[in-house]
Order: sequence, then structure tokens, then C-alpha cells
Amino acid sequence: MKTIVLPAAEDLHIHLRDGELLKFIAPLAKAGGAGRVLVMPNLKPYIKNTEQALIYKKQLQLAEPELEYLMTLYLNPNLTVAEIQKAAENGIIGIKSYPKGVTTNSESGLENYEIYYPIFAEMEKYNLVLNIHGEMPSNEAQNICIMNAEEYFLPNLERIHQNFPKLRIVLEHITSKAAVELIKRLGITVAATITPHHLELTVDDWAGQNHNYCKPVAKYPVDRQALREVIKENNSKFFLGSDSAPHLKSLKENACACAGVFSSSHLMPYLAEIFDKLNCLEQLENFTSRFGQNFYQLKPLNKSIKLVNIPNQIPDSFKINFLKDELVPFWAGKNINWQVELI
Amino acid sequence: MKTIVLPAAEDLHIHLRDGELLKFIAPLAKAGGAGRVLVMPNLKPYIKNTEQALIYKKQLQLAEPELEYLMTLYLNPNLTVAEIQKAAENGIIGIKSYPKGVTTNSESGLENYEIYYPIFAEMEKYNLVLNIHGEMPSNEAQNICIMNAEEYFLPNLERIHQNFPKLRIVLEHITSKAAVELIKRLGITVAATITPHHLELTVDDWAGQNHNYCKPVAKYPVDRQALREVIKENNSKFFLGSDSAPHLKSLKENACACAGVFSSSHLMPYLAEIFDKLNCLEQLENFTSRFGQNFYQLKPLNKSIKLVNIPNQIPDSFKINFLKDELVPFWAGKNINWQVELI
Repeated sequence: MKTIVLPAAEDLHIHLRDGELLKFIAPLAKAGGAGRVLVMPNLKPYIKNTEQALIYKKQLQLAEPELEYLMTLYLNPNLTVAEIQKAAENGIIGIKSYPKGVTTNSESGLENYEIYYPIFAEMEKYNLVLNIHGEMPSNEAQNICIMNAEEYFLPNLERIHQNFPKLRIVLEHITSKAAVELIKRLGITVAATITPHHLELTVDDWAGQNHNYCKPVAKYPVDRQALREVIKENNSKFFLGSDSAPHLKSLKENACACAGVFSSSHLMPYLAEIFDKLNCLEQLENFTSRFGQNFYQLKPLNKSIKLVNIPNQIPDSFKINFLKDELVPFWAGKNINWQVELI
Repeated sequence: MKTIVLPAAEDLHIHLRDGELLKFIAPLAKAGGAGRVLVMPNLKPYIKNTEQALIYKKQLQLAEPELEYLMTLYLNPNLTVAEIQKAAENGIIGIKSYPKGVTTNSESGLENYEIYYPIFAEMEKYNLVLNIHGEMPSNEAQNICIMNAEEYFLPNLERIHQNFPKLRIVLEHITSKAAVELIKRLGITVAATITPHHLELTVDDWAGQNHNYCKPVAKYPVDRQALREVIKENNSKFFLGSDSAPHLKSLKENACACAGVFSSSHLMPYLAEIFDKLNCLEQLENFTSRFGQNFYQLKPLNKSIKLVNIPNQIPDSFKINFLKDELVPFWAGKNINWQVELI
């Protein structure tokens, strides 16, 4: 029986929610093989300052003490230069920007990056990371829609990088060949996260299949191929961020579904299955641990996991009794060949 | 109060199902303003010969005697040259081809058109119409997916037309600028149907919204614009085929939805609303009646309808009591400004 021992995963993009749901979700993230997670700030209301982030961090630690949490703030017009310094001094690691209205709880997102240049300058100074959800809002007149929203966004990324070459930037959950090519071309301060589901899905897979529907949407076969190839190339600018986003079944199997794929609970089995299929299991540790650690300048984690090559059926759902609802994971019901054991 | 009197609509592409559901659906099609409908043959099992088509036609007439039915056969390997003659003599109007596996009940679709050349020659001789669902099956290696499946199909259409220039061909429910341009360029024996929903939707509208999910899927804003423009241009090669396809709510609001939009019940109010918004109400009669009649060489219908410019709320759903289910129409719950009255 083949086994692989590797460090617990760095999931450098995760949605853990708050309240009772958080208490349910955070332990599942640990069970899926994560050791450290970078937590998105798009709660309702969103995390706008250091104080709120630290309160949220305490809630996270109570919900699952054995995970390590990297905190972020939501880039917003009330963010001051002084707050950036405060954030850095209190261990906040990144600031997340959302274009207006393109994903869950992004109504407060931004429309114009230049107004944030003083903030970016301060972030550069204090070594904070800019985490970007890189999609343009849809615009009929400009033919921008969810299928090309990421590609249309890319010039914004390039412009920010040119103006702040030392600012570390992560383009989150990339989905397109164009994004892969741009990240490769830009300087070493620019990297990207890739989700398990975007290594696996194309547009065909979320058409009518809401559990595979997320933002940015999965795109053409050639785009997925570009993501797969860059993984196989072992390129250190591309590392794991699951974008795991729990939406209740009732909010997915309806007339107007929430966007997001829930992958925390089986994160490392998914990735072992995918990397195995792509014949690049030897790259897995770099993708799930070292590359992200290096980019974020993190100390190695003191925790290992074991991936075991045995049959594993993904559950159809997790019952969420207190909400009388369920949570449907990625690949629900599917038989895969890898399990994770925490050691 | 503005009213428009015009002939009952020619809906030259409709799915009416069979059995009890047919008895429910056919009267709704009349209520939506149709006078004559071209009925798709993709039942389970599909309509493979004249005899079956005539039996089905009787069921249709029983279900709703006031509609006129144009019948089609499903293009399949058992179709003989003799059957084409028989079909023509019995008033069958078209033969429908489905690429394998791309839409509802198309598992028996075709993969290679050349094997049907003897059939096409006979259809040309007997003046039958070839109705084509023009999508290539998805193919990762060739980067073919549901977003470009129609465009990749177009060379097949052109090839058939070149080989059978007198064969009348309808490319059904077109969704792309490329299709509009090709239809315009080809000879007068080639036309296309356009659905109300493809005049209205883009990819953004079916992402996570299964009631708007159909095959072919709605595409980019620029594609929708091409459809709108060709309507406004009053081009006689483009006419109404609703592709209205009733799928129960339980089969739409789930993890893996059926493809299809149900638009029969409010067909003419939808179109009046859309044409009104596009400032081309004066083109409506050509689109819903004359252009299709001319192409199909049909006698004018002896029936008129009245469109009335008053508030009209589309119902959230139709209850289907015998199935303990519902049917959700296009634009469910939406307030529009046009009603249809049968006169």
C-alpha cells in the first residue's frame, strides 16, 4: 500500500465563515489535511480592520485549535495607512481586494485601484501581501462576462505590479491560460493560487451542476490544461489556495445558486488523486506546502500528514443538523484512491 | 392601450413530450400564442418512422385540437430512402439530426453526416427539411466545450449545404455570432431558428441559474447582440423556434439539471416584450409568422391573436398535480408589459 508522508497543507485561500457554521467547518479543514490556512475576510459584515481580524482569529482558534490561521483584511475605502502599519504589527498577513459584486459578499468591492495606491505603498513598506480576486464586473457593452472576466482583469494586475514592484501580490484562484502566462512573465513578487476544482473542471462541468459552480467559473479545456501544465512544471509561483467555500445544499440546489465549491474536508485526497492522475505526485509537496511557504515567508509547519493509496468514497453530503441542512462536498459520492491520515 | 393583432405564431421548434405531460403542455402552447408548431421527435423512444410520427400526431391533436402540428422524424441509421418518400407522402415536414449526446434524449444522435448523404439526397428530392441541432460533442483534446460547440459545428452545415444546395436546412436555436454570419452567407435554402431566451440571456444568466440552462447554452454578450441585430434587420432567414422544453422543477433545481427552457406558455408576451425593448415591434410578425411560413412553404394560418400592452406577471410556476411537481416558466415571477389574447 503506497503511502506518502508530507507536511500538513498550507491552504492559502479558504472561507471558514463564522458562528455555528465555523465550528462545523474548521475541524473539517483540519481533517482534509490542512495545517495552516489563509482566511478570507468576506464575512457579513466583512473584516475591515485589525481589531476585527483579531477577534475573528480567536473565534477560529476556539473552533479548531490545531489549525494555524493567517488573517487578512478586506480592502475598502475606510482602510487607512495607519491601519496597515497596525495590521502588520499584529500579524495580519494580507489585504484582499474584490472587484465590485463579482462573488459572495463582494458588494463592497472596488472599482478603481488607483485610489488604493497610498495603501499599496504602505503594504509594500510593511511587507503585507495583496490578495486579488481578479475578475472584471460583467459589462455587456464591452463584451465582458464571467467567461472572460479574469482575462480582462489581467492588465490591472500588471499595472499594480509595475507601480509597486516590491509589493507581493497573489492572484487568487486563477482559471485561465492567460493568467498562467502573465504570472509566469511578471516578477518574483507576483504569484497565484490554484484550487483543486479548477484543475479538474471546465465550463461543461458547472453547466446545470451548481455544486461545481464557483467564481471565477471554470473555463475552456485549454485553460484547465494550462493550469495542469504549470503544476507539472513545478513552478514555484503557483501554489495551493483551495477557495473552499461552504454553501448549504439548499442554497446550491435551487433556482439561483450561490457560487463556491466546498473542498476543505477532503483537500489532500482530492489533490493526491489529481496529481496522481497527472503523473506528478512528486510535485505535490511543493504545491501544497513549500511554494506557498516561501512566497509568504512562513516558517515550516511542525505537522505532517500521511496520504494513503486506498479506496475512499467522498460522502454525498455532511448533515448540518442545527440548520436542518446539508453541505455537499466537491466530487460528492465519487470513489477516489487516496485518503489522508493526520499524524 | 396599445394592441397589436397578428397571426397566431408559427413556433417552428417545440418539445411537447407525450403522455399526461403532453396533455398539460399542449394547451399552454396554444395559450402562449402559437397556432402551428413544429414538433421535435426526441421522445423516449424517439420517433423513428412515419407510422410513429402519425400516432404521435394523433396524441397531439387529442391533447390540443386547436393547434396545428408539423411532424418530424429523428435522423437515425435505420431510416431508409423508402421511408423518406413515405414520410413526405404522409405530410412529415422535417428530419431532425442531433449530434450524439449533446442534449435531452440525443444518445442516439449522429457522429458522421456522410453516412446520411443518400437520405439527404432523397429528402432534397421530396422537399423535406433537414433540422439540425448544430453542436459538436465536447472534446478536451480539441478544446471543444459547450461554449464553442456550435461554432465548431458550422463547417458541417456548410459542407452539407454545398453537397445538397437544394436541400432546405434549418440550423436550430442558434446562439452565436458565427452562426448568424454563416447563415447569412449561405444560400437561400439555409435558414435558422432563434429562441426568445437566446435573445435575452448570456452565459452570466445560466451560471448557477438552472432554469436558464439549455443546450446550446447562451453565450457571450457579443453573440446575443448578433442575434438581436439580425432580428432588427428583418432578415427572412431567421425566424421563431422557441425550443420550449418542459422539465419539471425537481429536475431543474437539483445537483445536475436537465437542459431546457420552458417558454411556450408565454411565448408571444415574451417576444413582444423583447421586440419592444429592441424597438422593433414592427418586425415581430415577420419573425413569428411570415418568415417561417415562407421557408417551410406553409399556407397562412387562419387564426389571429392580440397582443395587449398591459402589465403581466409571469407565474412563479405551474403546478403539475398528477406528478406532485411544478413547471417553472422562463422569466418566472417577472413583471412584463405584454399579454396575449386569443381571438
